[in-house]
Amino acid sequence: MNERLDAFHEECGVFAVWGHADAARLAYLGLHALQHRGQEGAGIVASDGERLSGHRGVGLVTDVFDEQALARLPGQAAIGHNRYSTAGGADPRNVQPFLAQSSRGGLAVAHNGNLVNAGALREHLESQGAIFQATSDTEIVLHLVARSTQRTLVNRLVDALGQVRGAYSLLVLAPDRLIAVRDPHGFRPMVLGRLGSAHVIASETCAFDLIEAEPVREVQPGEMLIVDADGLVSFRPLPRERTPRPCVFEHVYFSRPDSVVFGHEVYAARRAMGARLADEQPADCDVVVPVPDSGVPAAMGYAERLGRPFHLGLIRSHYVGRTFIQPSQAHRDLGVRLKLNPVRGVIEGRRVAVIDDSLVRGTTCRKIVRLLRRAGAAEVHVRIAAPPTTGPCYYGVDTPSREELLAATRDHTEIAMFLEADSVGYLSLAGMHDALHGGRESFCDACFSGEYPVRPTDARRPPQLPLFRDR
Amino acid sequence: MNERLDAFHEECGVFAVWGHADAARLAYLGLHALQHRGQEGAGIVASDGERLSGHRGVGLVTDVFDEQALARLPGQAAIGHNRYSTAGGADPRNVQPFLAQSSRGGLAVAHNGNLVNAGALREHLESQGAIFQATSDTEIVLHLVARSTQRTLVNRLVDALGQVRGAYSLLVLAPDRLIAVRDPHGFRPMVLGRLGSAHVIASETCAFDLIEAEPVREVQPGEMLIVDADGLVSFRPLPRERTPRPCVFEHVYFSRPDSVVFGHEVYAARRAMGARLADEQPADCDVVVPVPDSGVPAAMGYAERLGRPFHLGLIRSHYVGRTFIQPSQAHRDLGVRLKLNPVRGVIEGRRVAVIDDSLVRGTTCRKIVRLLRRAGAAEVHVRIAAPPTTGPCYYGVDTPSREELLAATRDHTEIAMFLEADSVGYLSLAGMHDALHGGRESFCDACFSGEYPVRPTDARRPPQLPLFRDR
Amino acid sequence: MNERLDAFHEECGVFAVWGHADAARLAYLGLHALQHRGQEGAGIVASDGERLSGHRGVGLVTDVFDEQALARLPGQAAIGHNRYSTAGGADPRNVQPFLAQSSRGGLAVAHNGNLVNAGALREHLESQGAIFQATSDTEIVLHLVARSTQRTLVNRLVDALGQVRGAYSLLVLAPDRLIAVRDPHGFRPMVLGRLGSAHVIASETCAFDLIEAEPVREVQPGEMLIVDADGLVSFRPLPRERTPRPCVFEHVYFSRPDSVVFGHEVYAARRAMGARLADEQPADCDVVVPVPDSGVPAAMGYAERLGRPFHLGLIRSHYVGRTFIQPSQAHRDLGVRLKLNPVRGVIEGRRVAVIDDSLVRGTTCRKIVRLLRRAGAAEVHVRIAAPPTTGPCYYGVDTPSREELLAATRDHTEIAMFLEADSVGYLSLAGMHDALHGGRESFCDACFSGEYPVRPTDARRPPQLPLFRDR
Amino acid sequence: MNERLDAFHEECGVFAVWGHADAARLAYLGLHALQHRGQEGAGIVASDGERLSGHRGVGLVTDVFDEQALARLPGQAAIGHNRYSTAGGADPRNVQPFLAQSSRGGLAVAHNGNLVNAGALREHLESQGAIFQATSDTEIVLHLVARSTQRTLVNRLVDALGQVRGAYSLLVLAPDRLIAVRDPHGFRPMVLGRLGSAHVIASETCAFDLIEAEPVREVQPGEMLIVDADGLVSFRPLPRERTPRPCVFEHVYFSRPDSVVFGHEVYAARRAMGARLADEQPADCDVVVPVPDSGVPAAMGYAERLGRPFHLGLIRSHYVGRTFIQPSQAHRDLGVRLKLNPVRGVIEGRRVAVIDDSLVRGTTCRKIVRLLRRAGAAEVHVRIAAPPTTGPCYYGVDTPSREELLAATRDHTEIAMFLEADSVGYLSLAGMHDALHGGRESFCDACFSGEYPVRPTDARRPPQLPLFRDR
Repeated sequence: MNERLDAFHEECGVFAVWGHADAARLAYLGLHALQHRGQEGAGIVASDGERLSGHRGVGLVTDVFDEQALARLPGQAAIGHNRYSTAGGADPRNVQPFLAQSSRGGLAVAHNGNLVNAGALREHLESQGAIFQATSDTEIVLHLVARSTQRTLVNRLVDALGQVRGAYSLLVLAPDRLIAVRDPHGFRPMVLGRLGSAHVIASETCAFDLIEAEPVREVQPGEMLIVDADGLVSFRPLPRERTPRPCVFEHVYFSRPDSVVFGHEVYAARRAMGARLADEQPADCDVVVPVPDSGVPAAMGYAERLGRPFHLGLIRSHYVGRTFIQPSQAHRDLGVRLKLNPVRGVIEGRRVAVIDDSLVRGTTCRKIVRLLRRAGAAEVHVRIAAPPTTGPCYYGVDTPSREELLAATRDHTEIAMFLEADSVGYLSLAGMHDALHGGRESFCDACFSGEYPVRPTDARRPPQLPLFRDR
Repeated sequence: MNERLDAFHEECGVFAVWGHADAARLAYLGLHALQHRGQEGAGIVASDGERLSGHRGVGLVTDVFDEQALARLPGQAAIGHNRYSTAGGADPRNVQPFLAQSSRGGLAVAHNGNLVNAGALREHLESQGAIFQATSDTEIVLHLVARSTQRTLVNRLVDALGQVRGAYSLLVLAPDRLIAVRDPHGFRPMVLGRLGSAHVIASETCAFDLIEAEPVREVQPGEMLIVDADGLVSFRPLPRERTPRPCVFEHVYFSRPDSVVFGHEVYAARRAMGARLADEQPADCDVVVPVPDSGVPAAMGYAERLGRPFHLGLIRSHYVGRTFIQPSQAHRDLGVRLKLNPVRGVIEGRRVAVIDDSLVRGTTCRKIVRLLRRAGAAEVHVRIAAPPTTGPCYYGVDTPSREELLAATRDHTEIAMFLEADSVGYLSLAGMHDALHGGRESFCDACFSGEYPVRPTDARRPPQLPLFRDR
Repeated sequence: MNERLDAFHEECGVFAVWGHADAARLAYLGLHALQHRGQEGAGIVASDGERLSGHRGVGLVTDVFDEQALARLPGQAAIGHNRYSTAGGADPRNVQPFLAQSSRGGLAVAHNGNLVNAGALREHLESQGAIFQATSDTEIVLHLVARSTQRTLVNRLVDALGQVRGAYSLLVLAPDRLIAVRDPHGFRPMVLGRLGSAHVIASETCAFDLIEAEPVREVQPGEMLIVDADGLVSFRPLPRERTPRPCVFEHVYFSRPDSVVFGHEVYAARRAMGARLADEQPADCDVVVPVPDSGVPAAMGYAERLGRPFHLGLIRSHYVGRTFIQPSQAHRDLGVRLKLNPVRGVIEGRRVAVIDDSLVRGTTCRKIVRLLRRAGAAEVHVRIAAPPTTGPCYYGVDTPSREELLAATRDHTEIAMFLEADSVGYLSLAGMHDALHGGRESFCDACFSGEYPVRPTDARRPPQLPLFRDR
Repeated sequence: MNERLDAFHEECGVFAVWGHADAARLAYLGLHALQHRGQEGAGIVASDGERLSGHRGVGLVTDVFDEQALARLPGQAAIGHNRYSTAGGADPRNVQPFLAQSSRGGLAVAHNGNLVNAGALREHLESQGAIFQATSDTEIVLHLVARSTQRTLVNRLVDALGQVRGAYSLLVLAPDRLIAVRDPHGFRPMVLGRLGSAHVIASETCAFDLIEAEPVREVQPGEMLIVDADGLVSFRPLPRERTPRPCVFEHVYFSRPDSVVFGHEVYAARRAMGARLADEQPADCDVVVPVPDSGVPAAMGYAERLGRPFHLGLIRSHYVGRTFIQPSQAHRDLGVRLKLNPVRGVIEGRRVAVIDDSLVRGTTCRKIVRLLRRAGAAEVHVRIAAPPTTGPCYYGVDTPSREELLAATRDHTEIAMFLEADSVGYLSLAGMHDALHGGRESFCDACFSGEYPVRPTDARRPPQLPLFRDR
């Protein structure tokens, strides 16, 4: 999925640390390692035991934070959040962690995932006089906590989470405690680690690698971890699901290849899916070329299993940023050429199998096919190391509506025509699960299978925010 | 009062326009004319009839807004706000107008004044689960409106205002109407004007001058104006006070001299207070010198009545900004010298009467006395064109606590010693009211007299905000 | 002259210090005090005895410098420069001091004034292969020094200055010495002072006041001061002029009223000119109103001599900056209203004498007359505390060409008509000199008299720069 | 060479276009494609036929330019330049193109390469009064042109180039013509292309790919191309060298793999060098892992020839920028971990051959070895797809001094010890040339062989600039 699509649902990265003198800085590093999970904005809230202090902003972690900002975040505990880019540009009000001053003290919340009953909850809260600042689901949780009649923060949080349905890997920081909780299905990843005597929590293990923390284990679906001066306690206040349903798309595309996610190494998973793809959809080709970077491991597995040469026939630029000036119309497909340039010597006169991790809208893939043909490819065979994406995600991955999904309404022939490719081949659903050494019940594969573990009660768009652009 | 003091209470400027194609731009100009009422931050919310859009930021009006920002504020109605600088630097969350998306549609609020029961209201709202984003009283009004069970916006607003006590000159903008309301005592100023067929409302008339609008009248204490497609309606939903109590300090210091405030021209009021001061506290001096700029009219009145030469013996720099780099300790009193420089030829060998509009902490005044002595003054007599400031303000003027008020605990001899002056003289309370052609009941003079029209129920400091510095 | 006009010639401020541990910071303060002499850009070059380091930028001194910038300017000597705003916006290449690395070591130059043979010198230098970076005359001096065959820096500088004609108050900093030189006519001001054991040099004494330095004396016309480890030496290497010709416009408008310039206090000079104006051009008025701020001392002198009330009938805004967004055409004369607002109570129904320091184009003055009439003035009599400006300045004051000068081609009746005033009156040339206690030969009054002490050989415009906008 | 080293010599990228309505925008795109050749600063100068206009700045191309900047660069011709990062941070004065206004009209110069007699030329020019603004060699060429007594620009340029020795791929833009010239040895690359009727020139062909221009041929060593209204003319005014000596390091590291440089495709060259390395220095390993990205093609060639599995065992972050906040000392080797993270499943328990393109200082390589060991590598064998780097480059590649070159004073055993590797192996000089299908005389390989085609006459450091940091 080399197309980043504008949509409402949010994929994000979260990070927490408790018990380290340099907590905010570790959060900064952790968020940097998780930058691929969200580039719209970043924020950190730290606690010095009595008071929360925070800093948030629009942009990459390195844009948002400088030494001065970190210096204003004292304390031994911190939570951080990377926010995904969504439609309509960056709204600073949606940057997390959210922070509220209630009568029971300051509270900060960072959230990865998507609630399927957000609209109904929001409507109900507003009818009771709740004032919302942003469109994020996270704020709903904050309001539910604030309105709970329970006495302790933990009970209020359990009360609040009892009312929400959907996907959440949630971090809550109060001055004197840190709480991490993962929804009963475990849609989104969250792992626990240790750095000396400090506890760390992150969306992916690659955040631990950067700070040289040791991974301990996944936070379990439905588990709530409470960390305070007395140490770490785990309990299971949420109703159990028979089978957890971690998101298979984390392995297909979202997570970094150097992370271990849901207990499996992503790099190996992608190679295995590529190899299985070769079994199922061999291409009669002279060369196997990945769409970099996310398609590389699958392409290596594909080439190896097929016994055809693997080549980096598309070179990715390191300098693609958001602020690029759009040139005049005359420059066709400039967007993809800014990112990728073919190596003519590899492509010219060859039958090329081009491997991508997944295919969503197909518009970028078509540009890549054209790019390869202009570089002289004799044939172009598209191979996708995942099943056809046929449904949107309601649990936090940013996907377009069903109508925009290339495979939702087309068969393979039509898809090949759309892509202007000589052929197209997808990994089968069973093949994907085999490659991941799991059965159908091990993962949520709703975007591929249409089987949604939790029915969305309100798939409609969120209420429009008043357009407020703070400087 | 040439000392700007860090404190909680806020003096601010507000502006509104209804029915002009260039509403946001007029608001921009109006806020620019009211810049002296608040330099911490500025914001405008505009309505295009269906939707509100806003832009806010920290800094001066000209810093916060550019063409692009104004272009994003379409519509024929707008409200704007200038916020006063307070302790701890600029917190972007406190910049107004506040804006909320509730189930009944967007709502924006801009407020000048201070509620005396803010703490209790806030505590009660928080206990019911309300989440506050900032420390401003304005947010309390917004929550009260959101929670009201009344059906119409106007009724909800009346319901909300029925629960608050204190000072407010308030502007409320909904997509289809503008509401302006002034508290029953009329502590803070607010005037109504016309610009062609458009209605304009502002803290002071100087905002009308800039946009060439005609002043119509004061918004009356306790009056609520509702402007919508059907025109302007006035009604009086709030309990009446026997005598309004507009803030006398607006005439002493806060308002611009070219404004007409509470029906009187500020420039003339200040000259009259200076003349009366000459009657009450003549100084045996060779030259009368004002502390510019706010002391100039009073000094002119003083010199004229006394028959002594008036001289601009202290020159004020036009380039004093906030970002000045603090030099090393060796430079004594640099702060005041950056702002003021004596004209030696005027001062040297002379007995100088130096006139200021008011005296709060006295520390800046002492530096001015020293500056004049170093320039060769033979004697320095301090004359203050207002009574001794002996109590804090609870109605929206930014004053220090009682302990920090120079005159709260000292007699004239002690004050002169503190100021290192040869003598000190204040205008009497009666003299001030005489000069303003009003009786004691015409104004709130609590900071001078200690008689507070509305007792503050919670004078304590506001709840500490979590320190959140958004970029 | 409340009109700032776009033109080539530059008025500027210069400052130097030798022998103080905090040299760059003193230069920063000195430039801040001289900010009125130039707002386009500022720069400082410091020497640590072996190496020069510099920092320059577009904008006010406080915009250009921060702590970090000052920290990078080590050493006990520094020179600084404020640059005047000229046509076409700020060109960063013209910001001074200019700095060159030649085979004889680094050299920095800061210059106030204008060379009348700049065009010819530039042409000659270019024909010999000199490469110019900017349009400033200062760079010409730098090239002449670099090309001189003399052995010592001082001799090379004398050699260079022997080739230039016109106005210069020049500062030169080498790693091991500071040189200050004023042209033989002494057109532009420059004063010497002491701060403990350190030597300081500035355009005006107000820069000394801020840093608490003591004024010592003027740098004499034609004098060169050399300061190095051995102390300060004065010599007179330049041909003597029979009579120096310091610029009378410094007293009329340019200098700060709290400065002592050419041996006289500016504030007193302006009051005296105002008094003399009352003798020569009395107005039958009810009230005397200055155009603030530069017209205030003259208006006070005028009112006092005439025995009519002096009032601040026009209030000046403190918040006028350069970045103001221009509103639509409907707002007539907005520019002047942003700066000045009449006090209606002072103006309405009165015969007003409005006093300004000088009159150049007259367009702003006409707007002020209109402003006063709209505020209800019964009559408006314009009185100018200087003679009619009839010729451009070639020695460093920024004036428009002769055609644009209101008084160059009009008699008093025509001028009054242009200004829409009931009458207009100027101070006579003799009256001005009398008020300044000097004869015609004491000053350069070319802009009023048309008698130019040094004939400009090339009054034409400078060569167009390639348009280079560095970020 | 994954270590970027601070040094004086500059590698850069240049781009030119003549005859296209959108010249500045094409230059912008071209520089973007050449961004890997220099990240310190970028600039473009355009000609509208009569006048040059330019824009330069510190940072990446996308940082320096926005729509507004491009809009100010009108005309059908433009040249652009990317500048390499060098010691001491970005000095805005060194950002190219250089631009001068001489008596013969504006002239802009952009330059890639290094002159070996720069010091002597500079000294001579300074002794004649030339004033230098920056340290770049380019400015020397500009002065030589300005001082030439020849009549035409082309002759003056030939005159100037007759005095310089060393490496230059130079672009010169006058209002009415574009000149491109490559030094007689052809050290640095430069290619000619066509885009419709427009001529384009660039350092590498990848710049043509982005704008969809067709490569035509290399600009020949010693060739001068002159493009004007009459079309393109080639001539050979410079003394011929018997054998050109294009820089072999362009193939080893500097150029992009998708470029064709000196007639050969870089990607293929690197794979071939990797394969030859496998022949010469086989490692007894379980897995072959590249140092991404520059080591990837060589590693693929190595793994294929050796018949061992190729794995992306080190994942490179996409978000490494310059502004990263340095954490406390406790984080060992954080710098390299920010860029690279091992895939533990690939590394753990394996004997790893890690392949890099070249080795300069070795400090980064040692950190990578440690990273692999911490990820569980059983053995780590370093293989370098180039010969040992034993000498600095004097022709424009940024290398450290000889003392800092790891291989200059150490044998293989010592190098392996330094790197903490189990073994180290380099490609032989002959092997490199074989892989590139060239003899020793086809390339300059001085950094590997010590045989310098042009002796540097002044290898010493450049004159220290006065430290001038313009804002």
